Amino acid sequence: MSIHIRAATRADLPLIAALIRELADYERLADAVRFSEGVLGRHLFGAVPMAEVAIGELDGAPCGFALFFHNFSTFEGRPGIYLEDLFVRPEARGSGMGTALLAHLAALATARDCARLEWAVLDWNTPSIGFYKALGARALDEWTGMRLDGESLSVLAARRGDVD
Amino acid sequence: MSIHIRAATRADLPLIAALIRELADYERLADAVRFSEGVLGRHLFGAVPMAEVAIGELDGAPCGFALFFHNFSTFEGRPGIYLEDLFVRPEARGSGMGTALLAHLAALATARDCARLEWAVLDWNTPSIGFYKALGARALDEWTGMRLDGESLSVLAARRGDVD
Repeated sequence: MSIHIRAATRADLPLIAALIRELADYERLADAVRFSEGVLGRHLFGAVPMAEVAIGELDGAPCGFALFFHNFSTFEGRPGIYLEDLFVRPEARGSGMGTALLAHLAALATARDCARLEWAVLDWNTPSIGFYKALGARALDEWTGMRLDGESLSVLAARRGDVD
Repeated sequence: MSIHIRAATRADLPLIAALIRELADYERLADAVRFSEGVLGRHLFGAVPMAEVAIGELDGAPCGFALFFHNFSTFEGRPGIYLEDLFVRPEARGSGMGTALLAHLAALATARDCARLEWAVLDWNTPSIGFYKALGARALDEWTGMRLDGESLSVLAARRGDVD
């Protein structure tokens, strides 16, 4: 079996959209998928790309992807790479595709003067957590993510005062 | 009291560096601060800015900052704003500065077609968690952050195979 990782282009947009939906099914979050392919394409491949995508191919067939962007550590004074989504299709699991995608990002991080490679994992996904720890990753257990969206985001935005 | 929020410029670099160190002291993480002002300045104000900084002024005196960048939600197909650091100097606490900085980011998120404003909080910081929840934020308790850095990152990078 031959694994090949390549940077996605706009021609991959339908593939990326399909892979995101398959990931959502796997994460039991299909109801949370709200994107349109047009908006996704504009943000990934438009004038100001907001994230990058790596496609994993197994013997020439696309079987996985990683979507990532740069985050930033103030304590390091340097960017990091944040892996938003990593997904390997069922038929390619056990092939080394997940490791190959992560190794690709680790190499990009090193090449780009990044201090860290970070991501988040669902608490119930113990197979993935074990896989990540075996690669040397550590869990940031002392941190809790917070999210503001929808109406709460609009209400807070409206409280903005004297700003330039 | 007059609160004013403005975008930082390169001239604010010494101020930003001081505020990051004050934040690290507050978080009991002073030992984790490793940045040099030169590297920080290059990544914040160089050819490819990796993050943005908003400065909060109280009656003209800088008393707080927010450092943020764009993250990306595949399920939304749109970027979000990720708040990496929020800090208000002790003398300005209770003035509304924290809310003003968050409202500034919420307004930016709305203006930039972002679906979300997100950040992370240390588990023991119950005053902040209460403050955030009062603004409508919810805790992403089901997610755990993972980090790969240092030697583990280099080792994984070296495992990269066939990549373009």
